[in-house]
Amino acid sequence: MLNEMKTSLINHRVFKLEINFPALQKFMNRALAILLATMIGVGARAQQNTGFKQGSIISPQVSEGNSVTFRLKAPLAGSVTIKGDWEADGGKGSMTKDANGVWSFTTRNLPSDMYLYTFTVDSVQVLDPVNPFVCRDVGNLFSVLITNNGKGDYYSVKDVPHGSVARSWYRSSALKTSRRLTVYTPPGYEESKTRYPVLYLLHGSGGDEEAWTTLGAVPRIMDNLIAEGKAEPMIVVMPNGNPSKQAAPGETHENLAYRPVMSNTLPGYKEGSYEMSFREIVDFVDTRYRTKAEKSKRAVAGLSMGGFHSLFISANHPGLFDYVGLFSPGINFKTVNMTNAAYNNLEEKLALQMKKGVALYWMAIGKTDALYEPMQEYKKRLDNLHFPYKYIESTRGHIWSNWRSYLLEFSPLLFKK
Amino acid sequence: MLNEMKTSLINHRVFKLEINFPALQKFMNRALAILLATMIGVGARAQQNTGFKQGSIISPQVSEGNSVTFRLKAPLAGSVTIKGDWEADGGKGSMTKDANGVWSFTTRNLPSDMYLYTFTVDSVQVLDPVNPFVCRDVGNLFSVLITNNGKGDYYSVKDVPHGSVARSWYRSSALKTSRRLTVYTPPGYEESKTRYPVLYLLHGSGGDEEAWTTLGAVPRIMDNLIAEGKAEPMIVVMPNGNPSKQAAPGETHENLAYRPVMSNTLPGYKEGSYEMSFREIVDFVDTRYRTKAEKSKRAVAGLSMGGFHSLFISANHPGLFDYVGLFSPGINFKTVNMTNAAYNNLEEKLALQMKKGVALYWMAIGKTDALYEPMQEYKKRLDNLHFPYKYIESTRGHIWSNWRSYLLEFSPLLFKK
Repeated sequence: MLNEMKTSLINHRVFKLEINFPALQKFMNRALAILLATMIGVGARAQQNTGFKQGSIISPQVSEGNSVTFRLKAPLAGSVTIKGDWEADGGKGSMTKDANGVWSFTTRNLPSDMYLYTFTVDSVQVLDPVNPFVCRDVGNLFSVLITNNGKGDYYSVKDVPHGSVARSWYRSSALKTSRRLTVYTPPGYEESKTRYPVLYLLHGSGGDEEAWTTLGAVPRIMDNLIAEGKAEPMIVVMPNGNPSKQAAPGETHENLAYRPVMSNTLPGYKEGSYEMSFREIVDFVDTRYRTKAEKSKRAVAGLSMGGFHSLFISANHPGLFDYVGLFSPGINFKTVNMTNAAYNNLEEKLALQMKKGVALYWMAIGKTDALYEPMQEYKKRLDNLHFPYKYIESTRGHIWSNWRSYLLEFSPLLFKK
Repeated sequence: MLNEMKTSLINHRVFKLEINFPALQKFMNRALAILLATMIGVGARAQQNTGFKQGSIISPQVSEGNSVTFRLKAPLAGSVTIKGDWEADGGKGSMTKDANGVWSFTTRNLPSDMYLYTFTVDSVQVLDPVNPFVCRDVGNLFSVLITNNGKGDYYSVKDVPHGSVARSWYRSSALKTSRRLTVYTPPGYEESKTRYPVLYLLHGSGGDEEAWTTLGAVPRIMDNLIAEGKAEPMIVVMPNGNPSKQAAPGETHENLAYRPVMSNTLPGYKEGSYEMSFREIVDFVDTRYRTKAEKSKRAVAGLSMGGFHSLFISANHPGLFDYVGLFSPGINFKTVNMTNAAYNNLEEKLALQMKKGVALYWMAIGKTDALYEPMQEYKKRLDNLHFPYKYIESTRGHIWSNWRSYLLEFSPLLFKK
């Protein structure tokens, strides 16, 4: 506002350049943005918070080959390290300081993916101050980057039609409260009169109704798969799987007093109330949205605790879901009270589920996942029942890289029967 | 998942305590959460990111009187300061270190409000690592807290019915692209067949379609005012006011390459295309939502650049809006090309707008705002035209504290005619 006079001539020139030389204009825009951010920082005292903090620092910077350079200005620090969720070098790096007090580190070439990272400056964990893009995973915030030319392309926004994402509330009679959920509707949903199939997609321990849209990149994955004709246009419903909580931390009337914690520290964890009352979410969605309200157009899938939920939701509601996805499922039954009505008589429940028919029972886990053994035991139980399933083993462990990847594989298989 | 065996007995005890002693249970839950976060950090190597980073540190901690204590563990740091957007002490404080390397600072008692803050550790600006709640303002991230017993109560989630918040896309023929907007629908919208009035609420320079829901706390303000019967149930539409951008940074197909900048560094800034094509947003909303599509049930308001937009959107579309709100409007016309068709002949446009009728023309600004003088000049122009308006002067300047407060005052006045 206050810098308009200073910048109007410059903007005018940029606009002309844009017409003739888009690439140069892009470079000029960035250079100008940095210059102007500095000017604004000096000039506009009345404006609350403007521009970037660290002038000309660029971080993260992704090379053609997908190595990533991180930079942090910290001239007074004695040590700066980086930690990320890439596999190379265990996701760790020691940064080195240049003469201007800028610490930097370059990774090896990374597979195309979405990555989370933080710096540690003299023992304090910090976000990248010049990267405005962040995700919360359980109680921690992370800076975010994407490397392209592979899976990462599906986690990016492309120039394709976009679906809508709504945060809404449903009434849970079973849990005697209102509860929040996130709903993705595909591009064209609002304009059409078409009915759509529904994927119920469940988070893991420590997660909530935000996890799949942020860490899981669901709106981008679905927009991109639908645009390529690889996935059916579908509604994706992402409820909150912590029965003692109405919503994500910060979205309940506990406000800042409800800090994110692992779900096993919350009441109601694996006590069956969520699984047994899941029908009320399906009914809510079938009432509120234009769904194809039939088994062949309904899927339930989840990661970790959400895989456990998906197993027991589908087993306790035979005939409700034709598609089931267990992503690194948290099915170490030794830690669960299996006499609970939600969890008992599993063989009988699975036999009935098989009898009613399941179009696809899809399971995936990473070879180094601590839940690998319980997965193998569950496979044996299914084999003993002659219950048909599809099983995928991936590299790595209990990580979002796998869960996004599983969704990329699983969702194109849905509703094709 | 992996810690279930360890914690199931503890959880069981917590659950019993909850039944008998809720307050004690709350305390135990927090203590347990911290304990378990530590245990999980040690035990669950396969889980991606769990619990909290700094063990027993509590920050921010709000006292009964609304003083706030901040704590940061940084044993190796030479200096830690805090900067926030409260007025006391200029929002600044030097933190002091205890024997455990924990730095702390306590503010004076603060007025009830929502506040943003960061720490600076040896020249590096960092978020509060044990506070998971953050907001982005332009290019910077801030930790968030709320102090209660006043306005802050309206910025908090209360145990009242909640509206839905959707991120959706509309087709802009004028700007030849799809563009993203945020829409709040009031509690009960989906279940009812009622039609609702609409407030179009516009962000300032550097903002986007996310700003009013995050920094502006719109969903909470509207839920709470509606629950108290103070505001009419209404739809609030928050579009993106940067005509050269489809959406907020990170939500366009530029992805991480579009870093947030002040709007005056972007093409199309105050060139009139947004104001002149605003009707297409109104038409989209009237088609997509159950609106009362009439002047007496339509309002447009905005902060800073959004106030400038609101002035010219309403002046160029006389008869479209019965309610106009200019919050600290960016109306220094010396910096704008006033021969532009969107901005020229303002007196004639205002005269026509007055003739067609305006139920409420509401303006507010802080006494120390750098835009105070342009506001006074605009008042004189309205006075010369005998254009009726309501004018509010608040303390402080060009800050979100004022804009949330203005919305608290303005929205209850809407649609009462």
